[in-house]
Amino acid sequence: MRSPQSLRNGETPPRILAPPFHSTVSEQKLRRFNTLILVFRLASFCFSLASAVFMVTNSHGSNSPNWHVFDAFRFVFAANAIVALYSLAEMGASVWEILKGTTVLPETVQVWFDFGHDQVFAYLLLSADAAGTALSRTLRGGDTCTATSSFCVQSDISIALGFAGFLFLGFSSLLSGFRLVCFIIRGSRFHL
Amino acid sequence: MRSPQSLRNGETPPRILAPPFHSTVSEQKLRRFNTLILVFRLASFCFSLASAVFMVTNSHGSNSPNWHVFDAFRFVFAANAIVALYSLAEMGASVWEILKGTTVLPETVQVWFDFGHDQVFAYLLLSADAAGTALSRTLRGGDTCTATSSFCVQSDISIALGFAGFLFLGFSSLLSGFRLVCFIIRGSRFHL
Repeated sequence: MRSPQSLRNGETPPRILAPPFHSTVSEQKLRRFNTLILVFRLASFCFSLASAVFMVTNSHGSNSPNWHVFDAFRFVFAANAIVALYSLAEMGASVWEILKGTTVLPETVQVWFDFGHDQVFAYLLLSADAAGTALSRTLRGGDTCTATSSFCVQSDISIALGFAGFLFLGFSSLLSGFRLVCFIIRGSRFHL
Repeated sequence: MRSPQSLRNGETPPRILAPPFHSTVSEQKLRRFNTLILVFRLASFCFSLASAVFMVTNSHGSNSPNWHVFDAFRFVFAANAIVALYSLAEMGASVWEILKGTTVLPETVQVWFDFGHDQVFAYLLLSADAAGTALSRTLRGGDTCTATSSFCVQSDISIALGFAGFLFLGFSSLLSGFRLVCFIIRGSRFHL
């Protein structure tokens, strides 16, 4: 993030001077890119957290089935909770980068970490939501949902929120993949 | 794939001369890389095909449940059949490339096509298998599997084969991603 200007011996850095044109444009673009990632992470966090909360509160009295009896619903809760925590951590890293101009981890580690985790957690979340959908459809075929329909409706909402979280995690993964490729090509996350 | 040697006016290309050292090494490495992709595609094809066949033949007489009654099992069959067809087409493309030294589609289209489809089909296959697993576990909890256990065993085998297919599709995706990055960096799929 240092500007490419060099200083003569004994000269103090000029504090009022604006940085060179190219650097400003480059920084602005990087900031806009980071803000876009931050928005996607925020959306992913909100949807995953909402999904986990909807699932964990899904028990309606003693004559209704409980969510943690079903493996697939436990999987949905766990995957969404993990993704919510991960998104929160990544949001912190994004805010840090926007404010300070440097990555939290060393740059190489950070770009690989982001892309790798985005990919793995996207697979995890999609498989959890698919499993949840299959179970939910099966329950609708039986007599569980006719007896206590609010349980099934709440499960469906939770799973739908999980899919929305997956969508935004996928967008984040595309952006972090783009950043990784830029880093591999140029040796810097400044891409444009 | 042309060797960098140039010919003088009126000279015919020498047919007995070996190509330059660098080109041979580069070609050998590319061929080894393509062979590795071909092996992964073959494994992915075999497992997906076996999974689809196991699922489609999963009906044991009139008193046993039929696989196409269940949404998730239909999804498992469809996803595996699609991946098997795709892997077969990609195997053809790999063999063509190994034999002829050029890609079937233009190089830019080919590398993006491979990576994009690998990613999408990997997500598709994983979600199908996860949905199938959830349904299979639910059926084990009910009385379907105690009455006709062979139906459940065959479903489980089909789903397990699908997961194996996903694993090899994931490896192919890694390699095609690597090839895409090489192509973006160097403008050529020759990477090493």
